[in-house]
Amino acid sequence: MSPPLITLTSDFGMSDGNVATMKGVILSICPDVRLIDISHGIPAQNINHAAFVLGTTYKHLPGSAIHLAVVDPGVGTSRHPILLVTPHGSFIGPDNGLFSYILAANGATMAEAPRPGAHVLDHVQVNVPPDCQAFLLNRAEYWMEPVSDTFHGRDIFAPAAGHLAAGVLAGDLGSVLTTLRSNYFPPNRVSNGRMDGYVIHVDRFGNLVTDLVLKEPVDLAMQVEIRGQRIKGISRTYQGGNGLLAINGSHGFLEIAYRNDDASRLVGAGVGTQVTAWYTDDSR
Amino acid sequence: MSPPLITLTSDFGMSDGNVATMKGVILSICPDVRLIDISHGIPAQNINHAAFVLGTTYKHLPGSAIHLAVVDPGVGTSRHPILLVTPHGSFIGPDNGLFSYILAANGATMAEAPRPGAHVLDHVQVNVPPDCQAFLLNRAEYWMEPVSDTFHGRDIFAPAAGHLAAGVLAGDLGSVLTTLRSNYFPPNRVSNGRMDGYVIHVDRFGNLVTDLVLKEPVDLAMQVEIRGQRIKGISRTYQGGNGLLAINGSHGFLEIAYRNDDASRLVGAGVGTQVTAWYTDDSR
Amino acid sequence: MSPPLITLTSDFGMSDGNVATMKGVILSICPDVRLIDISHGIPAQNINHAAFVLGTTYKHLPGSAIHLAVVDPGVGTSRHPILLVTPHGSFIGPDNGLFSYILAANGATMAEAPRPGAHVLDHVQVNVPPDCQAFLLNRAEYWMEPVSDTFHGRDIFAPAAGHLAAGVLAGDLGSVLTTLRSNYFPPNRVSNGRMDGYVIHVDRFGNLVTDLVLKEPVDLAMQVEIRGQRIKGISRTYQGGNGLLAINGSHGFLEIAYRNDDASRLVGAGVGTQVTAWYTDDSR
Repeated sequence: MSPPLITLTSDFGMSDGNVATMKGVILSICPDVRLIDISHGIPAQNINHAAFVLGTTYKHLPGSAIHLAVVDPGVGTSRHPILLVTPHGSFIGPDNGLFSYILAANGATMAEAPRPGAHVLDHVQVNVPPDCQAFLLNRAEYWMEPVSDTFHGRDIFAPAAGHLAAGVLAGDLGSVLTTLRSNYFPPNRVSNGRMDGYVIHVDRFGNLVTDLVLKEPVDLAMQVEIRGQRIKGISRTYQGGNGLLAINGSHGFLEIAYRNDDASRLVGAGVGTQVTAWYTDDSR
Repeated sequence: MSPPLITLTSDFGMSDGNVATMKGVILSICPDVRLIDISHGIPAQNINHAAFVLGTTYKHLPGSAIHLAVVDPGVGTSRHPILLVTPHGSFIGPDNGLFSYILAANGATMAEAPRPGAHVLDHVQVNVPPDCQAFLLNRAEYWMEPVSDTFHGRDIFAPAAGHLAAGVLAGDLGSVLTTLRSNYFPPNRVSNGRMDGYVIHVDRFGNLVTDLVLKEPVDLAMQVEIRGQRIKGISRTYQGGNGLLAINGSHGFLEIAYRNDDASRLVGAGVGTQVTAWYTDDSR
Repeated sequence: MSPPLITLTSDFGMSDGNVATMKGVILSICPDVRLIDISHGIPAQNINHAAFVLGTTYKHLPGSAIHLAVVDPGVGTSRHPILLVTPHGSFIGPDNGLFSYILAANGATMAEAPRPGAHVLDHVQVNVPPDCQAFLLNRAEYWMEPVSDTFHGRDIFAPAAGHLAAGVLAGDLGSVLTTLRSNYFPPNRVSNGRMDGYVIHVDRFGNLVTDLVLKEPVDLAMQVEIRGQRIKGISRTYQGGNGLLAINGSHGFLEIAYRNDDASRLVGAGVGTQVTAWYTDDSR
């Protein structure tokens, strides 16, 4: 039988010892676990970035994996430490939106109305989906005492991941939660064949990932506009077109890239920038 | 039985192959070892930074772990390649201060008087503590020949770690040493309730870790001063206060942070900057 | 028996999930594999940098290792996805020069004349060496369908590595290739004891690695010139000399370094910069 698998995601970087500290805590509880880093290069305190990375990666890892995610600017405040169990992976970290994409993929519905004009960077309370379970990590016997107010990754989250990997039941780690924090995902606004969306992620190459999903992977009749710049047609590869190009990215979303260069810098766009796509034969 | 565990710490970064080269050397000697990276993002040649990271991380890893640390600006010169065996972990690397915090934690005493006015960045020769043993890695049969003058991580340190993990006795790897290089740790100067100390580490978020240890984790009656800026009271979390704040950090030292920002940059402070803390009801 | 070993090299950085995605794909095919990162900090799209890192690292890993390398600006275009099997390691990635140093180490000969005046950054088609085998990864049953046009690391290369590690025969993964892309390696031009070469790599410390191989590791009678600056004698360590120095580096090539500083920045040199070395007692 394969050993249990824990992945780690954080904004701790690799110039400090925090990541190895969490691994040490896990190994002291579950010595035969396999550890896989997803990313520790999340920009400091950037919950959105981590949520996207985790949300597009977890599905390629085994469904039995435990995903530990610590981007936690609110450590020590009232935000909840949680465990979210889904049909494909268990997730441990602060309840601050880190698991937004996992909740959305499992069909989470809103537990409250979003504020008027809410966009993709806003948060909203959502219901834990029917196939999932969520727990507040409030059982002190599974913490590493004394719990600090500044490093729950070491004192609460890593121990919970270690105990879960070692066979402790999810329900023993804490009490049931029925709602969680999530990013608000505005539906793609489609009217007259025109789609309005947002940049939701900027990757390491400066490619701008949007929340727009295309019906056709390559479409010469589509135009895309971002910050006043127009792109005609959807390219098949990053070598398509000259300069700025639009592509159906590997995550399944429309991406805006720049041939052999950094679209984010050249366009002056980032997370939250508006993007519009439409068919040239549609009225506009 | 769990496999042997080797951790790796270096300033090699992750854009070259040096880290994987050391891992390859280790695996060729001890194929079933578990490898855990502590950090390879140590700023180039910054022995102090590595010493702090290693010194605050090793205690969270199993006591049987072997810690390989290579920040080695003096490679090929007269500095010694060493193995330090302690009750909680064995340490392999150059004798240049990298293991200062481990030596201090084990009660190492000074083998020579520090120079007058010495501060935390100075070095001093210390005695190997009674519970520990130190060895000069001078047994060529455990080196990877020919030994270069520029990469002892590959040629001396990784082979030593691999052989130790594979069961070679520490005493077979070299001859006994009785003193080692260490950072000088000036005692906290306390007078009239006023403590004077230094910044000893700047972490990835720009938090300034000092060498001051507080008696009480949260203390509203304490004031802290750094570079002319005063902080009133010790906060419980990084979200406490407005702007600049003082906190009892997760490493057990007083830290100076800036709410959701980079204290190091905003205060203009770094390793060696003086810090003072005192009680407001004390005479000053 | 030791588990199979796969190394990973890419320009994906550690702020996105691409590396963990590839690891997840591999683990889903071969759950007991050992994974070792060589580097994911290759500068974006810098094939030369990756080729050097891989070419100087693979020989320190076991000969049974499978090396997955993805620096792939041409993903989705006509460049071939390949597997190169050598007496010391198997290599999987795009056929864009990534395996140049491995091909050279195995004695690959040119299959076409280089263009007149070609230098070390140019590409040339080479013959697969007699002791090696190369395969075009064109067997769709070993891909992860549907194959995207933007992330063959996930869809073609990682699955191929996983299947090879799990015991699939190399010849089953694709059809035989007889030539591959490689860097052009101009012979060291030696005349009258004068050697002309190029900087082929800049490491994390700013050291300039050249393609010149010295007969003697330390040679006080040799002079080196780069961008109009002369260095007298070859130093033994990075602490030798004052300021700019030349050294016989750990990779076996002449390196130009700056004592405790960054030679690349201070000299204004990079990959492709010309370097000359000669004996002072030779005519020049």
